[in-house]
Amino acid sequence: MLPLEQKVLERIKPSLEEKEKLEKTAGYLMRRAIQIAKKESITDVKVQLVGSAARNTWITGTHDLDIFISYDPSLPREKLEEYGLFIGHELAKEGQSWEEGYAEHPYTKMNYAGFDVDIVPCYRVTDASRIISAVDRTPFHNRFIKERIKGLEDDVLLLKQFMKAGGTYGSELKTRGFSGYLTELLIIHYGSFKNVLEAASVWEPNQKIEFLKPTKEFSEPLQVVDPTDAGRNVAAALSLDKFCLFIDLCRQYLEEPRESYFSRKIAAPLSDGEIIQRMNKRTSSIIALKFNTPEVVEDILYPQLFKMQKSVEALLEKQDFQLIKSGIWVGKDVVLIIELENSQIATVKKHRGPPVWVKQHAEMFREKYTDRTDVFAFYIEDGKYVAEIPRKYTTASSLLENEIHNCSLGKQVSKSLKDEYEILSGKNILQIKDTDYRTLLNEFL
Amino acid sequence: MLPLEQKVLERIKPSLEEKEKLEKTAGYLMRRAIQIAKKESITDVKVQLVGSAARNTWITGTHDLDIFISYDPSLPREKLEEYGLFIGHELAKEGQSWEEGYAEHPYTKMNYAGFDVDIVPCYRVTDASRIISAVDRTPFHNRFIKERIKGLEDDVLLLKQFMKAGGTYGSELKTRGFSGYLTELLIIHYGSFKNVLEAASVWEPNQKIEFLKPTKEFSEPLQVVDPTDAGRNVAAALSLDKFCLFIDLCRQYLEEPRESYFSRKIAAPLSDGEIIQRMNKRTSSIIALKFNTPEVVEDILYPQLFKMQKSVEALLEKQDFQLIKSGIWVGKDVVLIIELENSQIATVKKHRGPPVWVKQHAEMFREKYTDRTDVFAFYIEDGKYVAEIPRKYTTASSLLENEIHNCSLGKQVSKSLKDEYEILSGKNILQIKDTDYRTLLNEFL
Repeated sequence: MLPLEQKVLERIKPSLEEKEKLEKTAGYLMRRAIQIAKKESITDVKVQLVGSAARNTWITGTHDLDIFISYDPSLPREKLEEYGLFIGHELAKEGQSWEEGYAEHPYTKMNYAGFDVDIVPCYRVTDASRIISAVDRTPFHNRFIKERIKGLEDDVLLLKQFMKAGGTYGSELKTRGFSGYLTELLIIHYGSFKNVLEAASVWEPNQKIEFLKPTKEFSEPLQVVDPTDAGRNVAAALSLDKFCLFIDLCRQYLEEPRESYFSRKIAAPLSDGEIIQRMNKRTSSIIALKFNTPEVVEDILYPQLFKMQKSVEALLEKQDFQLIKSGIWVGKDVVLIIELENSQIATVKKHRGPPVWVKQHAEMFREKYTDRTDVFAFYIEDGKYVAEIPRKYTTASSLLENEIHNCSLGKQVSKSLKDEYEILSGKNILQIKDTDYRTLLNEFL
Repeated sequence: MLPLEQKVLERIKPSLEEKEKLEKTAGYLMRRAIQIAKKESITDVKVQLVGSAARNTWITGTHDLDIFISYDPSLPREKLEEYGLFIGHELAKEGQSWEEGYAEHPYTKMNYAGFDVDIVPCYRVTDASRIISAVDRTPFHNRFIKERIKGLEDDVLLLKQFMKAGGTYGSELKTRGFSGYLTELLIIHYGSFKNVLEAASVWEPNQKIEFLKPTKEFSEPLQVVDPTDAGRNVAAALSLDKFCLFIDLCRQYLEEPRESYFSRKIAAPLSDGEIIQRMNKRTSSIIALKFNTPEVVEDILYPQLFKMQKSVEALLEKQDFQLIKSGIWVGKDVVLIIELENSQIATVKKHRGPPVWVKQHAEMFREKYTDRTDVFAFYIEDGKYVAEIPRKYTTASSLLENEIHNCSLGKQVSKSLKDEYEILSGKNILQIKDTDYRTLLNEFL
């Protein structure tokens, strides 16, 4: 371990005091859970701490406790949900605040003594390939890691911090990066932080790490067969770009290790003047589509936003607008920000038809376009008919205004756009003042 | 033959009087040529009339006489040229004006009694595949056609007129259409004007008409094996677009025969107001490159101009300008007129690099672009590096001004451009007033 890594570790490793507090808190909540169960005559229930808290792989300051309460698989699902919520709600009475969460079935989230606590009911199945609900897998993951991670915890911490700083950590659909479990598996597989980086720097798509022989074929860039379920790719959520970004960062760090690779760089928000200066330098066209953020959880929201982004990009390109790039910012509003070569294009469009010698198609094309009164010209070029026709939309904003609702959009995003939206062109994007948005602009422009 | 074709024929067929005058004139000049040769003791010389005048396939008003004076192949080339020019010059003394022309060897062009007369020396070889100079082939062509064209002359006249009107007649490098000889061969092969049109309406590239089994493979769209030389494609000069235009016109005429297909439609020259109106309707960008027309014959000039046109198009497209089309007008000046989506483009350019996982290339790309101070941004998209870099040229005129001399240009065009040129943008193209140029604009805009 490099001295700089030791230094990073000192910063990110929980103190003894912090560890004791966590153990004490977790112990108390688990005992209370059992008491509550007993009192209500809910029998055959086991309570366990899972996740990074249970495995000593949590970074200082992240105070997550995942308490899993498991039942026999014979318990009907309604009962499981009923018991789970009952125990959760009773426990939550001791917390500062709580709410119900929904994954495959409801669970309880609470804030207790500075910890974010999830109280999750699950089935105690005999084998991870026989799970009834996705969360039933977690105790198997927990056991697999606990049995192997001893002595490697510091390497996990470094890797997690390296990924957090680089923006590749987190398997939720907003990030599409590496999960905590995946990070631990990588350390176990390669043996150390350094080894993971060295291996990853020569990764290629279809990269396979096979704890088991897989029972199906995966298509994702990184394929890590779940050691508790040979039919599952632990890295299924990892996007190609996050996969590549991690490779890239590994190479850079190995070439020149610096402490800055363990600190998230956050751009400064741009002022009005800076935005105008950047736009004047690029001389491209910026437009933004703004609408109220739908009130749904991020794992539902983000896939819809990415879908909208792809749809809008495809719409613009189909109508001959030349996209440079687009980005999404989510706050009170969603802002889809789009950079185009030019937001205004010529009226005349060169529409290429079939080769003249493909008689039937050629005759149909000729008939169609020579009958139209709005055709500028009709001629032959490189053996093909060309009809010069007027474009329906010559500005990106008129295109979006008229066609946005025909785009393939998710349910909630579609609804929000139907309620209200705004299109801001050029310097009108200055109307949005939020700091986070201005921070995104600093990366975008 | 349709009544309308009969009517066209009445209009284009030379009168008896016209024919008599041609025969008389040709007869006189040929007799004089023999007299001159005899007087100078140039022996073993034969004089013959070739071309459409000799085959009764000339359209009224076109007064071309091609007189070929042939010598034994044993005569040295210098002697052939000397004798040829001597007889030519002596004959030319009777003409209204004359000049020397150059093909493979010099010949004499004169104007005599309203006729454009070419007096061409050639070798009397035994076989067209043994020619010494390209012109030696002509007497063989003449004999082949003369022996077969009797009774088909009217069909040839109709086909020539149809091609002239449609802009597909003429095998010179300016036009790249059908030669007179090719037209006659088509009539002989298919049997009538109507048959040619019907056949051509289903032609496809690599169309073969084999008077002989070819001794080599041709690549041109229409491949008509010369009946006097199996290694030659009579249609070698025909461009793909003229080939297609002819197919297109044949189909249209067969579908709805009208007399207008035998009259060349010439667009009216556009006024300043009309040009502006058209430009405002298209909302594209027009630029024009103007320079003095080099003083060379058309068959040398046009290939150079087309080469320049392709070069300039490639230059613009390589630098991300989106070409709609370009056109060339030749008068006192050459004007290359170019229509672009936009003559001004954004400064920022998205430069895509290699996939991140192709380690060596990726590292080279990263190093190259992250070191540059003018790079706007560097990131990963779809697994590939992207560097946002500034474009060198953001206006088409600055690009042309700086790079035109690096384009692949013909010798004379290059020289003329080095002497002087002008780039006219947008409404400045109104500065050019020539009627022919304004006529081209009517087709272009």
